[in-house]
Order: sequence, then structure tokens, then C-alpha cells
Amino acid sequence: VARTRMVVVGGDAAGMSAAAQARKRRPPEELEIVAFERGRHTSYSACGLPYYAGDVVKDWRELVARTPEEHADQDIEVRTRHEVDAIDLEARRVRVRDLDGDRVVEEPWDVLVVATGSQPLRPPIAGIDLPGVHGLSVLEDGIELRRAVDAGPGRAVIVGGGYIGLEAAEALVRRGVPTALVEAAPQVMNRIDPDMGELVSQAVRDIGVELHLEEKVEAIEGDDRVRAVRTASRTLEADLVVLGLGTRPAVGLAESSGIRLGPSGAIAVNPRMQTPHDGVWAAGDCAESHHLVSGQPVSYHLGTIANKQGRVCGINIGGGYATFPGVLGTAVSKVCDVEVARTGLSEAELEELGLEWEQAVIDSTTRAGYFPGAAPIRTKVLADRRSGRLLGAQIVGKEGAAKRIDVFATAIWNRMNAQEMVNLDLSYAPPFSPVWDPVLIAVRKLAEQVERSLGDRL
Amino acid sequence: VARTRMVVVGGDAAGMSAAAQARKRRPPEELEIVAFERGRHTSYSACGLPYYAGDVVKDWRELVARTPEEHADQDIEVRTRHEVDAIDLEARRVRVRDLDGDRVVEEPWDVLVVATGSQPLRPPIAGIDLPGVHGLSVLEDGIELRRAVDAGPGRAVIVGGGYIGLEAAEALVRRGVPTALVEAAPQVMNRIDPDMGELVSQAVRDIGVELHLEEKVEAIEGDDRVRAVRTASRTLEADLVVLGLGTRPAVGLAESSGIRLGPSGAIAVNPRMQTPHDGVWAAGDCAESHHLVSGQPVSYHLGTIANKQGRVCGINIGGGYATFPGVLGTAVSKVCDVEVARTGLSEAELEELGLEWEQAVIDSTTRAGYFPGAAPIRTKVLADRRSGRLLGAQIVGKEGAAKRIDVFATAIWNRMNAQEMVNLDLSYAPPFSPVWDPVLIAVRKLAEQVERSLGDRL
Repeated sequence: VARTRMVVVGGDAAGMSAAAQARKRRPPEELEIVAFERGRHTSYSACGLPYYAGDVVKDWRELVARTPEEHADQDIEVRTRHEVDAIDLEARRVRVRDLDGDRVVEEPWDVLVVATGSQPLRPPIAGIDLPGVHGLSVLEDGIELRRAVDAGPGRAVIVGGGYIGLEAAEALVRRGVPTALVEAAPQVMNRIDPDMGELVSQAVRDIGVELHLEEKVEAIEGDDRVRAVRTASRTLEADLVVLGLGTRPAVGLAESSGIRLGPSGAIAVNPRMQTPHDGVWAAGDCAESHHLVSGQPVSYHLGTIANKQGRVCGINIGGGYATFPGVLGTAVSKVCDVEVARTGLSEAELEELGLEWEQAVIDSTTRAGYFPGAAPIRTKVLADRRSGRLLGAQIVGKEGAAKRIDVFATAIWNRMNAQEMVNLDLSYAPPFSPVWDPVLIAVRKLAEQVERSLGDRL
Repeated sequence: VARTRMVVVGGDAAGMSAAAQARKRRPPEELEIVAFERGRHTSYSACGLPYYAGDVVKDWRELVARTPEEHADQDIEVRTRHEVDAIDLEARRVRVRDLDGDRVVEEPWDVLVVATGSQPLRPPIAGIDLPGVHGLSVLEDGIELRRAVDAGPGRAVIVGGGYIGLEAAEALVRRGVPTALVEAAPQVMNRIDPDMGELVSQAVRDIGVELHLEEKVEAIEGDDRVRAVRTASRTLEADLVVLGLGTRPAVGLAESSGIRLGPSGAIAVNPRMQTPHDGVWAAGDCAESHHLVSGQPVSYHLGTIANKQGRVCGINIGGGYATFPGVLGTAVSKVCDVEVARTGLSEAELEELGLEWEQAVIDSTTRAGYFPGAAPIRTKVLADRRSGRLLGAQIVGKEGAAKRIDVFATAIWNRMNAQEMVNLDLSYAPPFSPVWDPVLIAVRKLAEQVERSLGDRL
């Protein structure tokens, strides 16, 4: 039998999960696996980068789940500092640039996995390329930012109030750097509804971040390095700027090679993670997902999805059978002691889909009210107006609040409605929840709301 | 219209929830509501009693969710220290004994809710009625136990290693009382499997409890008050004994009145919480539930179930429509910093049903491994051998581990199988979980196990 050659483009979560799963099923005699990674590192936790910058995690090596050497031990060859800059779908070759030696070679493949990830949005703002302006996307970014923070900057400005921006703000404040955050939208974390987002904005202010909402950055100023960030309303001094403006799928290579993109802008794949091109697969941030509530194609950039898609891809390449059914948009984060989580669709997303919904917002506690350490938890739930089917949930609260989002995610996955959820047999003991868990209090109120509205409208 | 009279027997979670829900839907002109409660208190958290004894909760009043006066404000009359000792199903009357005045009266009802709860098992052990031997079932028990602990007993013995026994042991150790625990079974918490229970036994020892497994109490010794507990192997000195031998439904009144019991020994009800007797309802610990995994009638005694059943009962009595579909046997507890949870069926229960299963046990961490505060979590999952349908789950771990059981409960409720669960879109950020949540790691291994076994056996 001829030996098959699997080439992986991108050595992080999705690509290396695919490699590992394929290897598990097919021995080196049958399947050769080579991965090309532009950076110096493989299989690391990008989500851990803000915590490394903030000195919560002491050594960046802890963020690396598997080094190139460890992959080599599994008969997976990884060539770091090697960038694939062209894919020939006909000849089944990739062109690879050695970033250190500056050599270019052509490498053949029988099976290709495109796992190029995502890249930070860098709008054309004057000065965005000045030294002192940091992204926080790959491990090298985290190492550089940590070094910059260690040097003791006088002031920092974060541009963008999404997860990365907020986690970076917390890290800087933690390190004693006076920090401002500029966000163009009226709230931070705009994937949750404004009423819930307000609680997060307050938490950001409470930890001492100077928060400027509804202000767009017009320019980053400085000569040989960054000196300030300018908005329409003010100029904020800064020795250090962190960009957290969101990400987009890194599909430049795919696009220029003729690989088909889906409506979300990410690479189109079927549930087995195959592209329409023979022998070509894609997984992770660069690959499209199906949203299980909206039914729409989406491009989310999360480690969980990347790992799962990589696993499915690798099982299929290895001769097994697996599918990736889709996503709910579940996410969790924290700003110091305030936890935030969401799953399903927000009001803005429902509005855009033309759906009508009922909602409930409730305040409760993470433990029995009388139990020491009982912390506040606000829960918002959204249901289809007619059927009561749960469409989305959001949680903002303190220690122990946010992980409850997983119950909502599991319920939405199973298309449960609020009425049925009320009776869910969830666990209770005073150190863990009130006798009616906040999840149940929320859906109980939501079910009543759905019933009332049906009665009113019929 | 004639005014309907609703009589509730038992003034705790189930009975008072039923009363409150019925009141919400029907005003006092239409529906009179009278509840008779043997004790002095209503609507309190029995689960909080060990924490009051242990001085974690400072005042027993904090455990009371609603006093008789607060119920009265909702036009629900509660007569405390009134015991119903007979029900006449034909004449629609109850006989009520005033425990303070020792008067007996007959009270008519149109609708009767039997919510008599559960009572501690008290096997015929010599000396079990000696002063100094405590139960921990009703609020008065908690107040008495607290008083006894405050008096500074020299040594305590706990009889029985279930939830109550373990929580009482923790309370006593916390208060500085040298404590031994005697359990007849080979492990504590025998509703979880031995391999998981072993971790709990170790936790009990670690907090300084002298643990004696596989020892049955033969007698409680003492003259005017308890002095020691005797097993076949030893005599343990004790100034204070706490019984935690489990509970049974308090159905003496129902049985002697001709109300039908189900196979579990609790009162038989339909999903609306109606008994087969016209106008007679039952809810809470004294009422039977349907187990959604085994399909069997069961009698579990948990505040969550009591509240839900009471709510369903009251909605129906109030003219609404609600059903209680059943239970999964979800439960959670902790022994100092070790958290324990379970849902669905254990191996012993599967065995008894004649089912065959595959299982997986995995060790992971509650947060990303590199994140400060990452605590160990062991997760065990059981699936139907052929379909992979999840049948049960158990968790033992530290801070932040146990509440994950709710994800399993929601998945089992929806009859998910392990293969599908692997792709569940659960939340992830380093302070909250590893990128593969322990729940997913467990079901991933379980799914592989099911596949492997299918392959082997086909």
C-alpha cells in the first residue's frame, strides 16, 4: 500500500488535534503526518495569554499543551517557523517558506488540513503599527506583552471591550498600570444584551479602569513609539496599547488558493470537516460552523470549537466516522470577580433574524441565601414567543455563577422549552445553590411569561 | 359560588408551595386555605440544619423561608403545633389534635393535600431513645442539636454515612468535637459507586473523623443519657449521638386513612400530583416519583423535588395545568472541601435492573491545569452498552467540581448518548475549565468505550 501523506497547515489546537486523532487510528507506515507552523510554538492556550501578561500564570511554558518535540514522539513531524504561502489544489502541493532560512520548498500532500486560525482585526488607524502597540493573538504576542508590562509602562490604553480587551485590562490593572479602555459601542462585551452588559461595564470601572464607551479611536499617536491614543473626545496618554478589536478567520491563503469560503467568510466545510475540494479539510477558527439556534453559518473563534472540529477532522482522516453538528455561541469570561457567560442568541441577534421572543431576568444567589459566600447572580433567558423554546441565556454574577451557562447550553442543544425546563432535576445543597437553582428560577419566570403572553395574544 | 376549602397537612416545602401556588391563582373569596403543621415552624430549609449545628449558619431563623405570619399575609392560614391524626375520605374531614391545648377537632375539606414529608429511620436498636441521641430531620432537631453542641460534648458518634451523617460529622469536627462515624456498608455515601465513594471516605478521614466501615451498631449504651455506641468490634464513647440512617416516607396517616401507596412505599400519585381518591392530592417526600432512567417508582426525599411537586400540585388545584414528569436522583453534597454529586443510576442500580453498561472514569481539573486554583475533579459516567445512552454520572472533586453534575442531569433528561454529548458547546475560559471540560473528557472516553465494545461484541 502506498503511504498517505497528511499535511497540516497551522500547528495549534485544530491542526494538531486533527493530527493526533489521525495518528491514533493510522500508524506511521500507513500515514505520514507533517505540520507547518509559522510561529515557534504548537498547541498552546491562546486564552491563557492575558493571564500570563497579568502574572497570574508565571511561565508561558505552562500554556503549551504539547511541544513540537512531544508531537514528534507521536510520529507527527512539526516544522515551526515554516509558513505555507500557497496551496496547489491540482498538483496537491503546498509552497512552504522557511521564515528563518528564507528558503522556499514545495511539499506534496494527499490529505491537506487547513487550520490557519484567525487573526486580529487591524483597522486602518494611523499609527497602528507603532512600536508599543500590541495584539494578543499568538503566543509570541503574549510573551512580548508580558515583557512590555514587566518594563513598567506609565499608562496603558486598551482598544476594544470584547473578551480579550477586558482580560487585558484586568491584567494591566493587576500589574499596577493605570489603564483606560476605549470602546466604540455603547457597552463592553457586545455579544450580551445591554442590560446585562451594563453590569460588566460597572465591574470594569470598579476595578479602576477608566472606561470610555461610544468613542472610536481616530489615531494612535507617537513618533518612534506609541505616545497616546486619540478619540473624537479626548487624547489618552499611553506607553502601551493593546488591541482587542475582534478577530477574523485567517483565510488569505485559502482564498488565494481557490478554496471556497462560506457566507460567514470562513472556509466552507461539511459536518465531517471536508471542504468541497478533493482531499482538502479545514478545522478551527478558519472553518465555518453551523449555528444550531439560528441555523446560520457562523465564524466563531474559540478554542473549544477548534479542538472539537480538529478532533472530528482527524477521526475522519484516520478512517473513522465523526461529525461536528454545530455551535451555540457559548462563551464565558471574567473581569476580576465578576463572571459573565452567554449561550444561544442575544436580543440583538434575535431581532436581526426577525424572531419574536419573551424574556425573563432574575436575581438570585449562587448558594442558599443564608449560606456564607452566597454571591449575587443575575440570569437572563430568552424564549420563542409561541413555543417557549429556549433561544438564549446570559449570566452575570460573582464566584460560582457563570458555569451554570452549561445547563442552558445543554438545554438549548436539546431544543427544550421553558415549561419543561422548570422540572429539570438539578442538584441542590445549601453550599451549592438555593433550593430553586437560579437556572430554574429564570425558566420558571420565563415559562410564566410565555403563558401570559400566549393568553394575551390569542 | 360556594367557597372551596383546601386543607394542607404538613407546613414545609411541598405543602406550602402547593398553598402558595393555589393562592396565586384563586383569591380568598373562592378558595380558603388552611395548613396544619405539627411543628412550630413552616417552610424552612431542612438541608441547612447541619450547617446551623456547625455554626456555619448563625441563626436558625435564617433557615426559615416563610413564617406562619408571612403565610397569613398571603391569606394562607397555618396552624402550627396541630397534628392531623386521621383523614376521613368519605366525609371529607380531618381530625386535628392541638398539641399544646390537647384539644381535638374535626375540620372539613374539599381539597386535601397530604404533605407529611419523611421521617428518619429508627431501627430497633437498644438505647436509641436515650437522651443525647439526636435525629436531624425537622427544624426543632437542628435547634436541639445546636444546643447540645454548644454545651461542649466530649465525644460524638455519628451513626450512618449518608448525606446527613457526613454533614453532621463535618459540623461536629468544625466545632472541635472529636467525632467517630459508624457505617454498616463498606463505604460512606452508598448511592455512589465504591470506587468514587472511596474518595469520600478518604475525605472524611482527612478532616479527622474516626471512620468505622462495615460495622453495625448493636446498641446505644447509657443509663439516664447516652454514654457509648457499641458495635461488634468496639465500644465508642459518646456524649452525643447523631442518627443518619436514612429516611422513609411519613405515610402512617395516609395508610391508616386508606390512601393508596405505590410500590416504593410512598403515596401513589399521577403526574398532576393527584391520588386516586377524589379531591386528595399528595406532594413532597411522602409522594412517589417516577424515575426517568429506570422507569421505576421511587421515593426520594429531597427539597428540590418537594418544592417542584408542591408547585405542580398547587397550580393544578388553582385551576392551572402542570405536570411533574419525574426525577433522575440528582444529588450533591460536600465534606469540608470535597464535593460529591451524582445523577441517574449507579452501577449497583443498573445491575439490579439487569442492564449492561460501559463506563469511563477520568481525572481532570476544575480550571485550566495551569490556572491558580485548578482543583482535582474525578468524573465517572455510565452508558447503555449498545446505544451509548447516558445512564448515570458521578463527580468527586474540590471547589467548583460538583455543580457540573447538572450538565449530566440535563443530558440524561434529554436521553442524550455519549457520542452526541462529546460535541456539546460548553463554556470555556482558563479560570472556569480546561479547554475540554471534564464533562466532555468523560463522555469522550465513554463514547470510545461504547464504540470499542460494540466492535468487540458484534
